[in-house]
Amino acid sequence: MNTSEFRRRGKEMVDYVANYMEGIEGRQVYPDVEPGYLRPLIPDSAPQEPDTFEDIINDIEKIIMPGVTHWHSPYFFAYFPTASSYPAMLADMLCGAIGCIGFSWAASPACTELETVMMDWLGKMLELPKAFLTENAGEGGGVIQGSASEATLVALLAARTKAIHRLQAASPELTQAAIMEKLVAYSSDQVVATLGTTTCCSFDNLLEVGPICNKEDMWLHVDAAYAGSAFICPEFRHLLNGVEFADSFNFNPHKWLLVNFDCSAMWVKKRSDLTGAFRLDPTYLKHSHQDSGLITDYRHWQIPLGRRFRSLKMWFVFRMYGVKGLQAYIRKHVQLSHEFESLVLQDPRFEICAEVTLGLVCFRLKGSNKVNEALLQRINSAKKIHLVPCHLRDKFVLRFAICSRTVESAHVQRAWEHIKELAADVLQAERE
Amino acid sequence: MNTSEFRRRGKEMVDYVANYMEGIEGRQVYPDVEPGYLRPLIPDSAPQEPDTFEDIINDIEKIIMPGVTHWHSPYFFAYFPTASSYPAMLADMLCGAIGCIGFSWAASPACTELETVMMDWLGKMLELPKAFLTENAGEGGGVIQGSASEATLVALLAARTKAIHRLQAASPELTQAAIMEKLVAYSSDQVVATLGTTTCCSFDNLLEVGPICNKEDMWLHVDAAYAGSAFICPEFRHLLNGVEFADSFNFNPHKWLLVNFDCSAMWVKKRSDLTGAFRLDPTYLKHSHQDSGLITDYRHWQIPLGRRFRSLKMWFVFRMYGVKGLQAYIRKHVQLSHEFESLVLQDPRFEICAEVTLGLVCFRLKGSNKVNEALLQRINSAKKIHLVPCHLRDKFVLRFAICSRTVESAHVQRAWEHIKELAADVLQAERE
Repeated sequence: MNTSEFRRRGKEMVDYVANYMEGIEGRQVYPDVEPGYLRPLIPDSAPQEPDTFEDIINDIEKIIMPGVTHWHSPYFFAYFPTASSYPAMLADMLCGAIGCIGFSWAASPACTELETVMMDWLGKMLELPKAFLTENAGEGGGVIQGSASEATLVALLAARTKAIHRLQAASPELTQAAIMEKLVAYSSDQVVATLGTTTCCSFDNLLEVGPICNKEDMWLHVDAAYAGSAFICPEFRHLLNGVEFADSFNFNPHKWLLVNFDCSAMWVKKRSDLTGAFRLDPTYLKHSHQDSGLITDYRHWQIPLGRRFRSLKMWFVFRMYGVKGLQAYIRKHVQLSHEFESLVLQDPRFEICAEVTLGLVCFRLKGSNKVNEALLQRINSAKKIHLVPCHLRDKFVLRFAICSRTVESAHVQRAWEHIKELAADVLQAERE
Repeated sequence: MNTSEFRRRGKEMVDYVANYMEGIEGRQVYPDVEPGYLRPLIPDSAPQEPDTFEDIINDIEKIIMPGVTHWHSPYFFAYFPTASSYPAMLADMLCGAIGCIGFSWAASPACTELETVMMDWLGKMLELPKAFLTENAGEGGGVIQGSASEATLVALLAARTKAIHRLQAASPELTQAAIMEKLVAYSSDQVVATLGTTTCCSFDNLLEVGPICNKEDMWLHVDAAYAGSAFICPEFRHLLNGVEFADSFNFNPHKWLLVNFDCSAMWVKKRSDLTGAFRLDPTYLKHSHQDSGLITDYRHWQIPLGRRFRSLKMWFVFRMYGVKGLQAYIRKHVQLSHEFESLVLQDPRFEICAEVTLGLVCFRLKGSNKVNEALLQRINSAKKIHLVPCHLRDKFVLRFAICSRTVESAHVQRAWEHIKELAADVLQAERE
């Protein structure tokens, strides 16, 4: 494909994407396909000669779309949101074109420097303690990871390296195995200190846990993967209180801050804790500025060596929405979850199972797990809306998460009417 | 930004990208900026009110481009290539729009199933042993990881879990620490068995190492991050001989197979070795098909939970180039590296430092490391081309890697003329 064909096909793809987004409400949110549906639809090996672009674009509707779960449908209330916005998509096109691999400052200075500044912008939106920022020559700083799992793994490895060094310094006679046996990682039943668990969006009390960790010289990593985005609103910022005790903190703008996947924001108080654990310096990655103290080589902050120019997405989104636009977006979602909560509360057959703080409502029919499992099964078989369940203690609970960028009150109302109808069927079937 | 503005801006961005690609040869391959250049050029926090798209697109040329190292310039010969093609960019636009997070089959069946089939397609292009494929209900299979580092880490963790289980079964009295002390990972000075090292593109002999690993029940992971793409050409396939002894194998189509970053292809002979090490099953991720044996939940194959619909890029690229087109692309790069090699060999002041097998030429001025360091410094200061060095034993060596999709013989010739001129200056300066 030459550049002039790309101009044409690229514009066709922009229209395809726009049409998809515009028409997504009309598509069934969850697909009808059965396991193994796709393999018989396509050849069993790659073609020797090129196919045409028309062939491929036609196959999207024939082969791909029938098997897509439409995460951006306003009837998708499952899991947690994954972010999607037009500014982020535009930035991603540019990111793909520049196509640099930003493992060192020299590999593309703009890639590294924009990331550092965007992480400061975002840190300030959250009112993170200054210790986590890079500006003013602090010891802290931010980095974009691919996922909260990677951020947590990076934090654990950094904590482990730090603890090993401390033990080795204190007791040089210890063998490596003896040191390993002494290492302990504490976690709750949702792992590491969490603000906004996936199950029910509960919050650990950092003001209790934090001072203990600091006193005992234990690394405290705080994960607010979903909830973190809400902390840009002053009325939710108190949920982050105690982060000043943490060594590292992360959340996923790619969940709820309109920056398309992947973009997991991680800050540390001491950059040297990460770079001490992950340093990698072969000759071919050295460059003249690396020991100047002036630059950041992000490969020392993460597991992979390669990294995309992901800060462009943050830059486009933050600028095209503005902080006020982002706050309004979060508030709209929280308001919709409270609207759903109040609908549930008005129906005496149902109960709310966890405090509704942000965009997630955990609810169930009063009664057995069996009846709730039957309800969820009917909901997901009908495929008008899509939900997933969770267990809270021994109870089987339905999760209603406000997800789509385009979800409105009318969708929530329609979803509730639909749930009520199916609940009536389930309760009727139970009585029979 | 609403959908109709996206239609307009998206098409503008397509043109921006096309213009960038078309004009990239005219841009200086390596930027002039100094560390810290970017921060003073932008505000120190995000705007409260939205900026316009015009503001942003203007800032790309003012703020971003001056700090970009142009990896896709035909004068970029540094590191290894990172893939870039129009079909992959088009696929990525679609991937961003669908925006599903494919952690389970149910989270978007098409995302999982296309990935499985594309990994079979690619495995067949490489003539991988059938044991690595999913089709015909084998025990093996492929998965897209974000990077070779992640693939290696996944392989190491799976190997570790397997070894621990074996030791626990054989000697139930052993403590965990005692088991940990018994674990050994063997590696060369480039880590794990490697086909095509970054330094000089050397190859480990799998036919020697493989049988020993199999006999000793040791996990063998083979990393061909860069070189792997070449194995789609029959004349290079012999370099992969011995992969039949491996437990896991990976290479990066995002380096040299025209699939934009990130796309690291990994295969294992036994899927259960991965899923045994990484299984994660909270209620909210369970779905009705998961224990049917019919489906794949890729979250059990990797470190992160989330994953993009990356197989779309493979599908677009494989179809729009065809196997023959991809082979022709690899062959062109290899031919250009041999062309550069023969230019070097014609000049008695220079020497070739490692066998040229694929797209990398390691060369130097006969003489001291100092004179070669001076040459590299002149080359990278002139910024007409961009190279990075390596050390081979004690020798400081220059690496000339064929990288850009659009590099032609004329660029290689011009690069060599330029290197010769600077070498003359360096040798002259040394004599004075």
